Amino acid sequence: MSEDMKQAALDYHEFPRPGKISVELSTSAASARDLALAYSPGVAEPVRAIAENPEEAYRYTAKGNLVAVISNGSAILGLGDLGPLASKPVMEGKSLLFKKFAGVDSIDIEVDSESPQALIDTVARIADTFGGINLEDIKAPECFEVERALIERCNIPVFHDDQHGTAIVTAAGMINALEIAGKKLEDASIVCLGAGAAAHACMTLLVNMGAKVENIYMIDRTGVIHSGRDNLTPQKAAFASETDKRTLDDAIDGADVFVGLSGPNLLSADQLSKMAANPVVFACANPDPEIRPELAHETRDDVIMATGRSDFPNQVNNVLGFPFIFRGALDVRASAINEEMKAAAVLALAELAKQPVPQDVLDAYELDSLEFGREYIIPKPTDERLLGAVSGAVAQAAIDTGVARLPLPAHYPLTTVDALLK
Amino acid sequence: MSEDMKQAALDYHEFPRPGKISVELSTSAASARDLALAYSPGVAEPVRAIAENPEEAYRYTAKGNLVAVISNGSAILGLGDLGPLASKPVMEGKSLLFKKFAGVDSIDIEVDSESPQALIDTVARIADTFGGINLEDIKAPECFEVERALIERCNIPVFHDDQHGTAIVTAAGMINALEIAGKKLEDASIVCLGAGAAAHACMTLLVNMGAKVENIYMIDRTGVIHSGRDNLTPQKAAFASETDKRTLDDAIDGADVFVGLSGPNLLSADQLSKMAANPVVFACANPDPEIRPELAHETRDDVIMATGRSDFPNQVNNVLGFPFIFRGALDVRASAINEEMKAAAVLALAELAKQPVPQDVLDAYELDSLEFGREYIIPKPTDERLLGAVSGAVAQAAIDTGVARLPLPAHYPLTTVDALLK
Repeated sequence: MSEDMKQAALDYHEFPRPGKISVELSTSAASARDLALAYSPGVAEPVRAIAENPEEAYRYTAKGNLVAVISNGSAILGLGDLGPLASKPVMEGKSLLFKKFAGVDSIDIEVDSESPQALIDTVARIADTFGGINLEDIKAPECFEVERALIERCNIPVFHDDQHGTAIVTAAGMINALEIAGKKLEDASIVCLGAGAAAHACMTLLVNMGAKVENIYMIDRTGVIHSGRDNLTPQKAAFASETDKRTLDDAIDGADVFVGLSGPNLLSADQLSKMAANPVVFACANPDPEIRPELAHETRDDVIMATGRSDFPNQVNNVLGFPFIFRGALDVRASAINEEMKAAAVLALAELAKQPVPQDVLDAYELDSLEFGREYIIPKPTDERLLGAVSGAVAQAAIDTGVARLPLPAHYPLTTVDALLK
Repeated sequence: MSEDMKQAALDYHEFPRPGKISVELSTSAASARDLALAYSPGVAEPVRAIAENPEEAYRYTAKGNLVAVISNGSAILGLGDLGPLASKPVMEGKSLLFKKFAGVDSIDIEVDSESPQALIDTVARIADTFGGINLEDIKAPECFEVERALIERCNIPVFHDDQHGTAIVTAAGMINALEIAGKKLEDASIVCLGAGAAAHACMTLLVNMGAKVENIYMIDRTGVIHSGRDNLTPQKAAFASETDKRTLDDAIDGADVFVGLSGPNLLSADQLSKMAANPVVFACANPDPEIRPELAHETRDDVIMATGRSDFPNQVNNVLGFPFIFRGALDVRASAINEEMKAAAVLALAELAKQPVPQDVLDAYELDSLEFGREYIIPKPTDERLLGAVSGAVAQAAIDTGVARLPLPAHYPLTTVDALLK
């Protein structure tokens, strides 16, 4: 970012008042009667009702539309472990996106926890406050244990977005990219550079959707993760290959897909040249991708490319996922976000990219046209149809798999956030 | 409450949507540039700034105006230990009052904690998220330990409103009542029926403001708390009298002041008759006071009476305190709410009741006039001058006692909440 943009970002956070979210009254509190109903003595009635039947909390409090965005600040963006307080702008930003894109009330909670167990205990104890929990920026491998334990202890959806949000949007783009390349997920040879939380989740989801684990080469700082290596975490061990390949150079040779969840400029033009025809390259390191799109396209014409950046085509952007996934889960009061719900989100996103693009989306990006193809495999974040498509698919999958406690709401399919908030 | 009012209270909580608060964007997020500043990549800048200097969290996030209302649901209103989830409507109600009366953003957090230590650990770990913590509806004696430990562990104000909010408003009314009775706090003989958290805090504050501990008789279910009793909690022991009095009947004889923080109809007409001339009776049990005002006034003409109810004169209502106390503390970034700040709030409230009442307050209560006297010893909650008077006094006291990290803001004295939010 330029120095100007850096200062603009600081100013944006400071003015008109510090931060990006506020808490407001969602009801009238103008008259003495209002206050008598809202607080003493009226409030005793919903208290009694919830004490008798905890499910009534969804009826009489804001719980059902409230998601906590929770971090311990141990892996903030690409910046590392800067502690809980420094993560607050990111978490508030996520809360802002929840509200803007899906009408979900969301509050950030930063946890200063001395251990994964302390983080788990803390979140579990406050979980009843919320309708769902979005974990964020928690470093691997602790994040796996934290999420697993919280899913077990909470009866509301718990979702580590760095893992599953990234995986869902990546998988959606991947399915479309492979279709354009004329290949099948089942047959694709996949190199995954990076072996952290997002990498594990991406590869797990791709396998759940048809990819073959034996076709995946996952690479960490030591090189290709293979069955001969010692001291692998369970997450890495799940992708250990029976192979002689040891380096990215070895693995990339003839590969159909490269997924980069690592760092800048780690895929060279030479390496890209060695990939199979119509190579699919998802270079998701932010802000600097594993290979610059300009270099990739100079190197070969047939590359199908996605990045994490908004200034290139095919942005893998988590905001395409989490707001709508939670919207759908909350609206049918799902007890979890299971694999089927994630797969439903993937397919809804992939399908939406094949539909004609509305004029307002073209206008927002100052484009004359945008058609399904190499330059458009993933929907744009400003596409209002995301709300209906993804939320609807996720909600239906929750119902179909028996984790929903409510039927599909009468106001589905959703149209716009504004309509939702009316 | 009538059945009609009960249903109205439930309806109020359910419609137009469940609950009473929502989270909204406090800034613009309309354009792609806005989103690039609010989230990726712009958000990295405030993250870096806060990592370098934690105090910058007040500049770039909502922390500085955000108060958590936290309960474990162990003493909800007068309803008892109904658990954390059932307390949610009360805590949301408190958040609503924070915003409406003082422009403080506030979110409720319900904690399912297996022990006081678990509650302490949980709140301490999430405390950095907020600018202040309002503890609520936590039962005695655990609440004392919880508040003490959190004050020690957090560098933001921690305030148990059931204790100190009640004490501050009670003390303000008491000072004025005694002035009208022609008596001094220093000389007053005080009977306190009830020995819970609020009683302890009220008597402690009255002593800090001049009452003599040897003039106080505190009464629990066993009778007068005296030095011959065994197994007293430290809080009760602080008020153990050297006395032969054993019952309310014994203690009330000739008393100047009765403070009821107990239950309905526990003070009889006979007992009231035995009090000194111009007796001050604060019958604060809710909804049914220790003695009905009608009965008290029938019993003797010279009684000066306050209750917890809005339908009688002189309502001891916590909303006169907590929104403005936090407003003042937050605005000078106080690290705590100390005794001097509480005393400043008391004196500001007491003084305000002596000022001419604005027309809009008279209109709101459909009164022709309201003048300082037996029927008006405490300001009305709708009096907009509370904001300036109480917040200003608390902020100045924080500065004077060295717990403020900022000077008095330029926009002080505050006028209206609307002006504050502009």
